[in-house]
Amino acid sequence: MGRKRSRKRIKRWVPAGTLPGTLVAHAEAGLEPVQIHIFSYDPDRCEERVLRPGEIPSLRVPEKGVLWLDVRGLSDTAIVKAVGDRFGFHPLALEDVLNIPQRPKVDRYENHLLIILREVTYPVETEQMSMFLSDRLVATFQERPGDPFEPIRDRLRKGLGKIRSLGADYLLYSLCDAVVDSIFPTLEKLGEEVETLEETVISDPVPQTLREIREVKKQLLEIRRAIWPARDAMSELLREDSGVIRPGTRVFLRDCYDHTIQVMDMVETYREMAASLVDEYISSVSNRMNEIMKVLTIMATIFIPLSFIAGVYGMNFDHQVSPFNMPELYWRYGYLFALFLMAATAGGLLCYFRKKKWL
Amino acid sequence: MGRKRSRKRIKRWVPAGTLPGTLVAHAEAGLEPVQIHIFSYDPDRCEERVLRPGEIPSLRVPEKGVLWLDVRGLSDTAIVKAVGDRFGFHPLALEDVLNIPQRPKVDRYENHLLIILREVTYPVETEQMSMFLSDRLVATFQERPGDPFEPIRDRLRKGLGKIRSLGADYLLYSLCDAVVDSIFPTLEKLGEEVETLEETVISDPVPQTLREIREVKKQLLEIRRAIWPARDAMSELLREDSGVIRPGTRVFLRDCYDHTIQVMDMVETYREMAASLVDEYISSVSNRMNEIMKVLTIMATIFIPLSFIAGVYGMNFDHQVSPFNMPELYWRYGYLFALFLMAATAGGLLCYFRKKKWL
Amino acid sequence: MGRKRSRKRIKRWVPAGTLPGTLVAHAEAGLEPVQIHIFSYDPDRCEERVLRPGEIPSLRVPEKGVLWLDVRGLSDTAIVKAVGDRFGFHPLALEDVLNIPQRPKVDRYENHLLIILREVTYPVETEQMSMFLSDRLVATFQERPGDPFEPIRDRLRKGLGKIRSLGADYLLYSLCDAVVDSIFPTLEKLGEEVETLEETVISDPVPQTLREIREVKKQLLEIRRAIWPARDAMSELLREDSGVIRPGTRVFLRDCYDHTIQVMDMVETYREMAASLVDEYISSVSNRMNEIMKVLTIMATIFIPLSFIAGVYGMNFDHQVSPFNMPELYWRYGYLFALFLMAATAGGLLCYFRKKKWL
Amino acid sequence: MGRKRSRKRIKRWVPAGTLPGTLVAHAEAGLEPVQIHIFSYDPDRCEERVLRPGEIPSLRVPEKGVLWLDVRGLSDTAIVKAVGDRFGFHPLALEDVLNIPQRPKVDRYENHLLIILREVTYPVETEQMSMFLSDRLVATFQERPGDPFEPIRDRLRKGLGKIRSLGADYLLYSLCDAVVDSIFPTLEKLGEEVETLEETVISDPVPQTLREIREVKKQLLEIRRAIWPARDAMSELLREDSGVIRPGTRVFLRDCYDHTIQVMDMVETYREMAASLVDEYISSVSNRMNEIMKVLTIMATIFIPLSFIAGVYGMNFDHQVSPFNMPELYWRYGYLFALFLMAATAGGLLCYFRKKKWL
Amino acid sequence: MGRKRSRKRIKRWVPAGTLPGTLVAHAEAGLEPVQIHIFSYDPDRCEERVLRPGEIPSLRVPEKGVLWLDVRGLSDTAIVKAVGDRFGFHPLALEDVLNIPQRPKVDRYENHLLIILREVTYPVETEQMSMFLSDRLVATFQERPGDPFEPIRDRLRKGLGKIRSLGADYLLYSLCDAVVDSIFPTLEKLGEEVETLEETVISDPVPQTLREIREVKKQLLEIRRAIWPARDAMSELLREDSGVIRPGTRVFLRDCYDHTIQVMDMVETYREMAASLVDEYISSVSNRMNEIMKVLTIMATIFIPLSFIAGVYGMNFDHQVSPFNMPELYWRYGYLFALFLMAATAGGLLCYFRKKKWL
Repeated sequence: MGRKRSRKRIKRWVPAGTLPGTLVAHAEAGLEPVQIHIFSYDPDRCEERVLRPGEIPSLRVPEKGVLWLDVRGLSDTAIVKAVGDRFGFHPLALEDVLNIPQRPKVDRYENHLLIILREVTYPVETEQMSMFLSDRLVATFQERPGDPFEPIRDRLRKGLGKIRSLGADYLLYSLCDAVVDSIFPTLEKLGEEVETLEETVISDPVPQTLREIREVKKQLLEIRRAIWPARDAMSELLREDSGVIRPGTRVFLRDCYDHTIQVMDMVETYREMAASLVDEYISSVSNRMNEIMKVLTIMATIFIPLSFIAGVYGMNFDHQVSPFNMPELYWRYGYLFALFLMAATAGGLLCYFRKKKWL
Repeated sequence: MGRKRSRKRIKRWVPAGTLPGTLVAHAEAGLEPVQIHIFSYDPDRCEERVLRPGEIPSLRVPEKGVLWLDVRGLSDTAIVKAVGDRFGFHPLALEDVLNIPQRPKVDRYENHLLIILREVTYPVETEQMSMFLSDRLVATFQERPGDPFEPIRDRLRKGLGKIRSLGADYLLYSLCDAVVDSIFPTLEKLGEEVETLEETVISDPVPQTLREIREVKKQLLEIRRAIWPARDAMSELLREDSGVIRPGTRVFLRDCYDHTIQVMDMVETYREMAASLVDEYISSVSNRMNEIMKVLTIMATIFIPLSFIAGVYGMNFDHQVSPFNMPELYWRYGYLFALFLMAATAGGLLCYFRKKKWL
Repeated sequence: MGRKRSRKRIKRWVPAGTLPGTLVAHAEAGLEPVQIHIFSYDPDRCEERVLRPGEIPSLRVPEKGVLWLDVRGLSDTAIVKAVGDRFGFHPLALEDVLNIPQRPKVDRYENHLLIILREVTYPVETEQMSMFLSDRLVATFQERPGDPFEPIRDRLRKGLGKIRSLGADYLLYSLCDAVVDSIFPTLEKLGEEVETLEETVISDPVPQTLREIREVKKQLLEIRRAIWPARDAMSELLREDSGVIRPGTRVFLRDCYDHTIQVMDMVETYREMAASLVDEYISSVSNRMNEIMKVLTIMATIFIPLSFIAGVYGMNFDHQVSPFNMPELYWRYGYLFALFLMAATAGGLLCYFRKKKWL
Repeated sequence: MGRKRSRKRIKRWVPAGTLPGTLVAHAEAGLEPVQIHIFSYDPDRCEERVLRPGEIPSLRVPEKGVLWLDVRGLSDTAIVKAVGDRFGFHPLALEDVLNIPQRPKVDRYENHLLIILREVTYPVETEQMSMFLSDRLVATFQERPGDPFEPIRDRLRKGLGKIRSLGADYLLYSLCDAVVDSIFPTLEKLGEEVETLEETVISDPVPQTLREIREVKKQLLEIRRAIWPARDAMSELLREDSGVIRPGTRVFLRDCYDHTIQVMDMVETYREMAASLVDEYISSVSNRMNEIMKVLTIMATIFIPLSFIAGVYGMNFDHQVSPFNMPELYWRYGYLFALFLMAATAGGLLCYFRKKKWL
Repeated sequence: MGRKRSRKRIKRWVPAGTLPGTLVAHAEAGLEPVQIHIFSYDPDRCEERVLRPGEIPSLRVPEKGVLWLDVRGLSDTAIVKAVGDRFGFHPLALEDVLNIPQRPKVDRYENHLLIILREVTYPVETEQMSMFLSDRLVATFQERPGDPFEPIRDRLRKGLGKIRSLGADYLLYSLCDAVVDSIFPTLEKLGEEVETLEETVISDPVPQTLREIREVKKQLLEIRRAIWPARDAMSELLREDSGVIRPGTRVFLRDCYDHTIQVMDMVETYREMAASLVDEYISSVSNRMNEIMKVLTIMATIFIPLSFIAGVYGMNFDHQVSPFNMPELYWRYGYLFALFLMAATAGGLLCYFRKKKWL
């Protein structure tokens, strides 16, 4: 599965030389119908409803209020085009929405911003969140339904906090913050995996362990690739001074920026832990191997001189020819002497090994 | 072949102290005749034709239109010189066109820009694309025929999109974008090679596998060397404010710059995967070796005491001299006792090894 | 224990999409009652007392003096909120106080600064110190009672030095300096551990040694994570020009900044030493293993030809059939000859090994 | 020789506390007499001659022309001092000329520039080139005769190109370019060595191969040390705006700067190739070792059970005592049975090993 | 000794929360009495004398001249305090003088500069040199007597060069230069050690060699820690524009800055050499080990089949029962046949090994 995901991530490009701004549905966009939701709110009220594609051209931003257009699914390029036409989004920006995956980034266009971030779910899978911010309008495009925005919708519905009165830039901040914060639970789970592996590596290091460590490392790398440019994007958003983002929202964006740094910190920590796990695995395996080899070699070494002694007394020199030929064989206690010689040799070697601390 | 390519890439220099701006045909330029094509277009029409070298001095940029001079092949330095003379390109710039390979870069001259990029084809081979941009003129020099510009030519011929009305800088962008995008399919193929190798490394790691991993790494390195400075070049082009590039084109160049970053991202990802493949190969091989050594050593260790016992009862101590000399040999069940002793020893060792989890 | 700590460090996040500025007690905040102390002083006097939570709303900054509000423990969010309300601290700042752990940092708000540092105790455990600086006010929030501020309290009580007359920014400096300096004794202890391990690695390298080295490395990494951003924070404080920090205090802050650099220097030195300890451990272990294998292999190698000779003279070729069959067995000194042959072989091999410096 | 060279490079310092600007002949300057050549030219003519040391004080820069003073050899400090006195070079600059080796650099003095570069010859040996540029004057100091400037002298003599009319800064550029370009042939030769080693590593990896790889790496490192600061120096020269370098020369200097980058690129490529050669060597050697150990261990393992069987039937249990004692010895086909048992055992093991793919 | 030094370097801190500017004698300051020397000079004369501590308060800077106050030893904090009081040095600056070790640095105070550098002696030991520069005054504090300043004192005494007329900033430069240059001889000695080790590693690699390599690496690291921040300090001094350093001195400081870079270059070169020595050592040791194992394994492998043959003919199958039982034993040349079989086997194996290039 890990492999499939990584392949998906990379099979991506529009044929070289294609007309820029051409909108092509992504190969993996699937066939699920696109869902369009809108939230139209001002400080006093909040209207939420499902939109039919045909209604897009006549969509209006509420007077003195904010419109949040939430498109879930990218299978129908006509909808993306219709939204772009209605609100004057740049064709290249729309291309980036469809042309998945894009690196997280902030792109400034004449009268709107495009913010691209990646949501991370567990087991590690990322989803591109494209968000347009323009005057009193936020338009979000998700790859598929399912997102971390439900608490924000609740706050809009119930008028919790000041979200209804703080404008489109504050809504954008809230969405960005939700996307960034959605990484924490996944990281926590990976952290637990790392800790479990830490114990496995010491107690039972098998090749499978190594493969699991590598799988965790890959997932951390994928999060890293999602969060690293996201940090730059948030920092750029912070320094954005085109007027689309009001000074009052900046302090919130700084908080969100801090969160991206915290995510990165955690990712780096886990990556270091995982990297040291590989070393620990290798040292644990080689330790085991050494232990085996040592014990077996020592055993072999003890028996070698014993077998030699047995071999000597198995020789067939003829005692009848001369008394010098193997007189031991004709001693009264010859056999016992030989056994004793063997025992003494073995004992001596054992002492020597023990003295050398090889046992 | 990989070796040949890398050699070609490096055998390159004009003798130290040569008059700067001297135009020397590259040693590997080959003898193929140079092809010259021109596109002369304005919003309403597009003329495309093959040019004879003799026509260069009388070449004109169409009034209110754009001229694209496309030179394919570098074997004839006279043509390069003629183009340079006709349009006032700097001698050092022309030297860079011929003096292959140059790093991708953007060089500003008084009234023209020189952009050098590298096209990448599969199996990884790079080709220098030198592009001059000056007022309503784009001149491109390729090492040899064959390029990713066909879709652009089609758009020019058929008047697709706004390419005919957007000026020379937009044409330049389109060419740059085509060159950068031409890397994606090659990367995809390398990505597949990496994945195939990933499986081979686990299932059947032979030295040849390692050599293939290294070949992939070399190819990725070569792409990296082509794309890394290309990114800087695109970024410089973005910040270019001499008026040759109009503000409207900038947003397209930023998109092209984003593509170079995406290529780099993918290259780095594959490089990391390939690097970890080497580690995985080494650990896979040493794993195998360990397994062999372990089983064999254990086997040897079991037989060593057995052979010792057989050796003992092969000794020739004379029972007739004294009853203490090898009485076992004269027991009724002596042989069975010896066989049982051997079986017990072997069984005991097997149990011990199994308890220690060495088996 | 090391594991527990690291787990604590990472289990941290407010659910994605939570209303920003929501104050939630940290899961590990414990149930100990919060202690609130205040120091209210001007150059002439210093009042110190314990505050009841109910008194917070009516708390006053002394005219021409400084108020230090010292909150120990974070279990009661109401107190944090009351302090925030009384002095106008930003909700996001208060969230950072409770939302542990935060990276050390300096956050500017409209009329106050938030400085977050980490105290380090031995065995390595870090505690977040959140400090607010505003006009003639310092408010500190600690995770739990116990801090390195006692000498500062003494100087305030006894009016030692100029601390009473140098304003809130000087008090803030003193607190920061105390937090940074609190790391030195811990580092010293880790340094001693490293030195002990250095000897163990050479004299008696067991897997446990490796685990201890890794434990030290982890602790050093944790200090590094505490001090690295602290250095940036102090440097930002140095460059702070909002008027909250007076020029006269700057020279002291620079000194404190120097201390953070010294801590980092020491941490990096110890980290390098610990890293080289791992290498030394591995080389020490492999050295031992090599020594064992070498001696044992040599021993085996010497006995192999001896056993072969014994085997030869244990063959049963029938001398009666022909005088060519094993005549040695019927020599007068055959046995002695065989023993001599064995001794000569063994001696020759020993000489050869000695000449090759394998012994 | 490599070692000698590196020693030369490092044995260098003036005793601490020496009067700054003291001119001391370098210990390795040798005793060869110093050669002084001058080129005195303007657009119309070029005078070239050998200068006697005594003529230095009366040397003149030609009106409207350029003087190139070319000193080859540093054994006579009096000459260096005389040149310095005549043209007002700073004592510290002169000290740098003599005090070899200096890092490549550009030093600005009140009315002159000092440019230091390193020429590289094959086998890798570097030579310091110190060049002074001041108004219509270039003075070069070489460690010893022999340089890559001959083509420039030819162009001066024959008036090729515009060198005679483009001033002292253009001459300086030409000299710098010649020094930088002199590195390419050496790099090419090192590249060939790397390729030869690449094949040796696979076909016949002996310790000598490793030593040769290291020698190449050292030489590449030495070039790197020469070219890395040279790039900075050229970049500084490019940004030089004191008027000594005219805008028209800048485009040429940029070309020279590009060449330093190309050299660095090639050096880094070769260094990477050499580094991967070391890995390849190690893996090639360990591969061989593994192959040997495996085959030998397998062979030993096959014979061990066979010897055991032979040992069993060499036991002396007395058949006469009981029919249970080694009845096989008295079977009609006992011997054949034993031989068959051995063959079957060996065959079984071989099959097993082959099935496990150990053979 | 190396260990002791490193311990000294790290046991250092004032208890957290201590009154800033508190002067505490360093624990290792020793009990040697402090020596105070002064040089009071102007262009025409130079007075040198030993100062009693009691004279400090009445010390005067000579009109139109320069005073160099040279304090050797730090055991008496009263003297440091008296000097600080007399010349108005900042308490924090004085603290840095006593609080050893400080990182090399430049600290600006209202009317004086504090420059801290580290002298390096062989065997590598560093000593903190604290230098104050203020209007016509240089005050130096050394940890103990013994310094590289003697040549400067000589130049002052004898009026060599322009040192007497160039002011306090030039004196400061001279002192800095002497401290930096004092590192060269030590580096040269370490360079010789590295070269000696290079030969030992190939000819006779024992664990002791590795320990010596590590000792050299530690010493190089210590020099690096002394010189790296010193370079920053010198660069800061160069950019110092408070008027204390006159433009004329700047060119000398640049020279000194160049020297720090040269030292760093040499240190990095030696560090690289030492690092590659470790690799070379490991490969040399493993090479030896491989050689031993190979030869011994081959020897064992040759004897194994020989012993097997001997074992076969040591079996006791009864020829009298059947002619199939070991007929060889009763052949006329049976024994010779067996010996020949053994010789042929051994020879065949040797040929095979030789063909495989294992011998």
